[in-house]
Amino acid sequence: MFFASDNAGPAHPQVMERVMAANVGHQPPYGNDPMMEEVRTGIRRVFEAPDAEVFLVSTGTAANALALACYCQPWQAIFCSAVAHVEEDECNAPEFYAGAAKLTCVPTDDKMTPDALKAAITARAPGDVHAAQPGPVTITQVTERGSVHSLDELRALTAVAKAHDLPVHLDGARFANAQAALGCTAADMSWKSGVDVVSFGGTKNGCMAVEAVVFFDPSKAWEFQLRRKRGAHLFSKHKYLSAQMAGYLQDDLFLKTAEQANDNAAYLAQGLRAAGATFLHEPQANMIFVRFARAIHQKLHDAGAVYNLWDGPLAGAPEEMVAARLVCDWSISREQIDAFLAHF
Amino acid sequence: MFFASDNAGPAHPQVMERVMAANVGHQPPYGNDPMMEEVRTGIRRVFEAPDAEVFLVSTGTAANALALACYCQPWQAIFCSAVAHVEEDECNAPEFYAGAAKLTCVPTDDKMTPDALKAAITARAPGDVHAAQPGPVTITQVTERGSVHSLDELRALTAVAKAHDLPVHLDGARFANAQAALGCTAADMSWKSGVDVVSFGGTKNGCMAVEAVVFFDPSKAWEFQLRRKRGAHLFSKHKYLSAQMAGYLQDDLFLKTAEQANDNAAYLAQGLRAAGATFLHEPQANMIFVRFARAIHQKLHDAGAVYNLWDGPLAGAPEEMVAARLVCDWSISREQIDAFLAHF
Amino acid sequence: MFFASDNAGPAHPQVMERVMAANVGHQPPYGNDPMMEEVRTGIRRVFEAPDAEVFLVSTGTAANALALACYCQPWQAIFCSAVAHVEEDECNAPEFYAGAAKLTCVPTDDKMTPDALKAAITARAPGDVHAAQPGPVTITQVTERGSVHSLDELRALTAVAKAHDLPVHLDGARFANAQAALGCTAADMSWKSGVDVVSFGGTKNGCMAVEAVVFFDPSKAWEFQLRRKRGAHLFSKHKYLSAQMAGYLQDDLFLKTAEQANDNAAYLAQGLRAAGATFLHEPQANMIFVRFARAIHQKLHDAGAVYNLWDGPLAGAPEEMVAARLVCDWSISREQIDAFLAHF
Amino acid sequence: MFFASDNAGPAHPQVMERVMAANVGHQPPYGNDPMMEEVRTGIRRVFEAPDAEVFLVSTGTAANALALACYCQPWQAIFCSAVAHVEEDECNAPEFYAGAAKLTCVPTDDKMTPDALKAAITARAPGDVHAAQPGPVTITQVTERGSVHSLDELRALTAVAKAHDLPVHLDGARFANAQAALGCTAADMSWKSGVDVVSFGGTKNGCMAVEAVVFFDPSKAWEFQLRRKRGAHLFSKHKYLSAQMAGYLQDDLFLKTAEQANDNAAYLAQGLRAAGATFLHEPQANMIFVRFARAIHQKLHDAGAVYNLWDGPLAGAPEEMVAARLVCDWSISREQIDAFLAHF
Repeated sequence: MFFASDNAGPAHPQVMERVMAANVGHQPPYGNDPMMEEVRTGIRRVFEAPDAEVFLVSTGTAANALALACYCQPWQAIFCSAVAHVEEDECNAPEFYAGAAKLTCVPTDDKMTPDALKAAITARAPGDVHAAQPGPVTITQVTERGSVHSLDELRALTAVAKAHDLPVHLDGARFANAQAALGCTAADMSWKSGVDVVSFGGTKNGCMAVEAVVFFDPSKAWEFQLRRKRGAHLFSKHKYLSAQMAGYLQDDLFLKTAEQANDNAAYLAQGLRAAGATFLHEPQANMIFVRFARAIHQKLHDAGAVYNLWDGPLAGAPEEMVAARLVCDWSISREQIDAFLAHF
Repeated sequence: MFFASDNAGPAHPQVMERVMAANVGHQPPYGNDPMMEEVRTGIRRVFEAPDAEVFLVSTGTAANALALACYCQPWQAIFCSAVAHVEEDECNAPEFYAGAAKLTCVPTDDKMTPDALKAAITARAPGDVHAAQPGPVTITQVTERGSVHSLDELRALTAVAKAHDLPVHLDGARFANAQAALGCTAADMSWKSGVDVVSFGGTKNGCMAVEAVVFFDPSKAWEFQLRRKRGAHLFSKHKYLSAQMAGYLQDDLFLKTAEQANDNAAYLAQGLRAAGATFLHEPQANMIFVRFARAIHQKLHDAGAVYNLWDGPLAGAPEEMVAARLVCDWSISREQIDAFLAHF
Repeated sequence: MFFASDNAGPAHPQVMERVMAANVGHQPPYGNDPMMEEVRTGIRRVFEAPDAEVFLVSTGTAANALALACYCQPWQAIFCSAVAHVEEDECNAPEFYAGAAKLTCVPTDDKMTPDALKAAITARAPGDVHAAQPGPVTITQVTERGSVHSLDELRALTAVAKAHDLPVHLDGARFANAQAALGCTAADMSWKSGVDVVSFGGTKNGCMAVEAVVFFDPSKAWEFQLRRKRGAHLFSKHKYLSAQMAGYLQDDLFLKTAEQANDNAAYLAQGLRAAGATFLHEPQANMIFVRFARAIHQKLHDAGAVYNLWDGPLAGAPEEMVAARLVCDWSISREQIDAFLAHF
Repeated sequence: MFFASDNAGPAHPQVMERVMAANVGHQPPYGNDPMMEEVRTGIRRVFEAPDAEVFLVSTGTAANALALACYCQPWQAIFCSAVAHVEEDECNAPEFYAGAAKLTCVPTDDKMTPDALKAAITARAPGDVHAAQPGPVTITQVTERGSVHSLDELRALTAVAKAHDLPVHLDGARFANAQAALGCTAADMSWKSGVDVVSFGGTKNGCMAVEAVVFFDPSKAWEFQLRRKRGAHLFSKHKYLSAQMAGYLQDDLFLKTAEQANDNAAYLAQGLRAAGATFLHEPQANMIFVRFARAIHQKLHDAGAVYNLWDGPLAGAPEEMVAARLVCDWSISREQIDAFLAHF
């Protein structure tokens, strides 16, 4: 009963098969392996972007920080949701990679609104040498609270950015979960909605450790490669990254695992709802923020369920409501979910 | 006939078995997986260092840059061989991670000498606010030219560092190859010789992508973890790093693969010597710098041999001598070496 | 009628006399001039801190950024008011000097409250490797909105910092104005209230360009000097900085000019109040945030008055209320203020 | 008898008069003072460069580091003489400002040769992602050893840079001394010789603390201003910087003081030569590296002469030759020089 995160489970067999297949003989290092060509072609197909430049790194934080750095000067501000992963969970990696740029939090407890984003940008006073200058906008899709921006919401945000000539990054650690939730294309959710660069996550959705950075503007390619190497993120045996991503793209596996993860979460949410639990955010993908009695948390805990409490300790009044974050990956079985729900 | 590097071949089956075994169920992320405990115990056993702190990263450059950053202030100079990997092949990663510290090259075409190191340190004028202050010394073992420091040579260098109260880092991307060449213990080649922190390489010697950073001074542990996260090098599915290193340490596999690689190189060097080739550096581990006629290079090239020329282009006078770097990993077969030598 | 800032007027004659006196012969460079000894003694006397370490720089941003950098690791967050100078007016200098640390804004439109500060610190989750770790707290006295923290308010904030083992910096670009307003000692407003390091401003209050950084913990002295040199802020002809600060400390000139500036502002505020203007913040030192009819702004503008509008353009409905920031330095004459008020 | 440096003497009366004249009333801050317009016009006249962009900072290290940063990416190498001020005397400021770029020392004990520069550039392997990429070349004129590049020498170096598409910075902390020595124009010694940006020193040659950064490519203007502010080098009371530089440019004072300083050094060198001293470098401007008997050093020392020994301590065999660095500024009198020479 592991619902702590989607970053702890197994990689999909189709991914591991490609890894094992890559483990034969010698292949050119540093991204010059033939499988990287397959990855490049695959990403361009998925994103309907024949000129896109594609690079692989091994962590989501690396994908975000390196992508943002390519669009940010050290004297600029990066605009993000106040609860964005880049702000709360990356230990200053974005600032580090962007040369000591500033993260500016747009006030919100989940998604940014276009008005709040606009207010944050205009407060930065472009052209005033004393102020951090406005820099890239980064949007998280699926958000850290499990919400999915509709295409309209996405476009409303990128429109604000574009009105100020600012580039847009999409933190897509759970890109596939969002795409599956919206039932749209990858192109719809990226360049067709005004996104310039995407962190396209693999790790949380069926891979061991691989994320693709997809630039729709190919002019950033060489700078990215230098930044990646300088950040110590260029793998010599890159073929193992390529293999994972190749397996992940093959037959659109990424969508299948995302759908499975979303379905698992929907099934779990349905059960929780039936049991009378209330939701902090309406679950839209594979993350659930839910509140129920501490006594049930205690029972689940005693039964070995693993997940994170959100607003209170395990110890306390049994009848008190305590929130939890529950995340489903593709590999969770219905049996595990049923076992979890059985404690309600 | 792949002799371009030891960073392009397969991982050892014993390593991959552990990876596949890790690919089951959910395990705590970010280094809290149980296998990391096995790795920690294994490294402490190998290095005879029960208090050592051990962390895993996925590239050698990350291991070097993060380890050095823990021992370097931004206003200091890091002392290294003029041909060190940190100086020539890491695209300013050490400077980046050490907060814009300076690399100071000790003049040499291979190993540093104690006198040259001492001269470089004293030239930095500790206590003069205008000068970069002396910082850590980093030694590469095996060197970038395939040489191995004897324990006496190592100790003579660390003695200079210690006389100036400077910490010592060992870039051991090929640590095991050096240990095998010297026939000493890992402790002999590290803390018993005055080394404070080691980059213990796995990638080049039988793994996919994993290096251990071993601190003999455990007080650096928390700082390293923050720097690793901030550098975007903390894996969520860390279990796949642990699994590789666990397999690599199991039954001292690292020594066996290193011995195999060294033996392969010795066999190749013997054949080259017999064919009249001359050596730029006496081969001591698994790297060979050798000079022979361009006509032979051309034949090898036409036959599909892959390796790097060192001091001239492939095109030119056939009788002219041109140098090459030839690297053997553990997986090269005698048949491949014989096929290579057959062109002489 | 210059009320735009206190950063544009003349230096006090007593300061300039010392500068001219220093312009004779040769004196040791880089802070080794004899006048720096006078400065050090003077600051220690003023702050009743015989062990304090004192350094001079030429801008307030340098004082703040260098002082904070001595108390901040790159993976930490600096806590400040959302309208602090370090956040809004220093173009990422604090982030730059602190190695890409993060500024965390405590929500407020002027002073931080202890509760809001505490909430911001605890949100950073010390010990969680994914989060920026809590770092120094910086308090601005006089605030950017012209308010002065009482000693009780100051101590309530530093108590929160100390409860979390965090160091405290005081941005005292207008330290003397605050001291004059409170009628307390410099010691009361610094180390006796839990402050570890002060930026003690001279530029805005009678000097050309000099600020003292005062460390009550002398262990930071050498690091500061290296950071200052590395930041290119160490003057060779340092005697001109020493001379300014020596003149500023002599006979407590800094307090006299501050009292004069505060009196000027009080006189101006009285006149504005009498004319029916309303205040955004109650003026407590030498800055006034005041709202009156656009028609009067237009008249003042036409008459050559120089100051900054705060919440609207000069053009618009004449009867509409528009806010302005008015700052008085020590050199503004009563005649100038009367001339200004004559337009109401 | 102060010959330790040209960074410790008085500012010229003409400079101080302008400073005192600026000390009246209020002027717009941050470089918007009217005198800055005079400075801009003056520099453009002197350099025959009507489109040049001109900015003032208060230290030579700031001028160098900020200018280089505008022409350097963090993954690049800056090429400099092994004895350049940027390498030896700026405590990693260039690395800090250039975002952790690398300084690459071209081997030499004074001037770079074109061949050595070319070798250093080509060794950096542009296009190889592992290597620091070639970045700007910086040339020091007058060198740190008191030598002056002829225009031909200058052009030979910049030609190498241009052949590799690299920008060229001139560290002209003693620009005027070099110009006076060569008897050329400022244009000859800068853009007409292939220089893109100049640090034009004032501090060592008659000012208190001011250096101009002169960009012949105006496109860098806004970036420089942001970098200057972010580096905490933008003066609020900028008028005092403008006043110094205005006084320095007025009637070409900079050339007169430089000629005086050079003449002083020539007179001193003549006396030393007559006394049998030998020179480490042929004196060409206002710096002398000279060797004479320790006994004379001791006599000078006892008589209160202030200067730096270069290759040995004051204590030792009286007959042994010991080198010294002697620097003359414009303010040294013939009497002081005669008094110095009287000890030979």
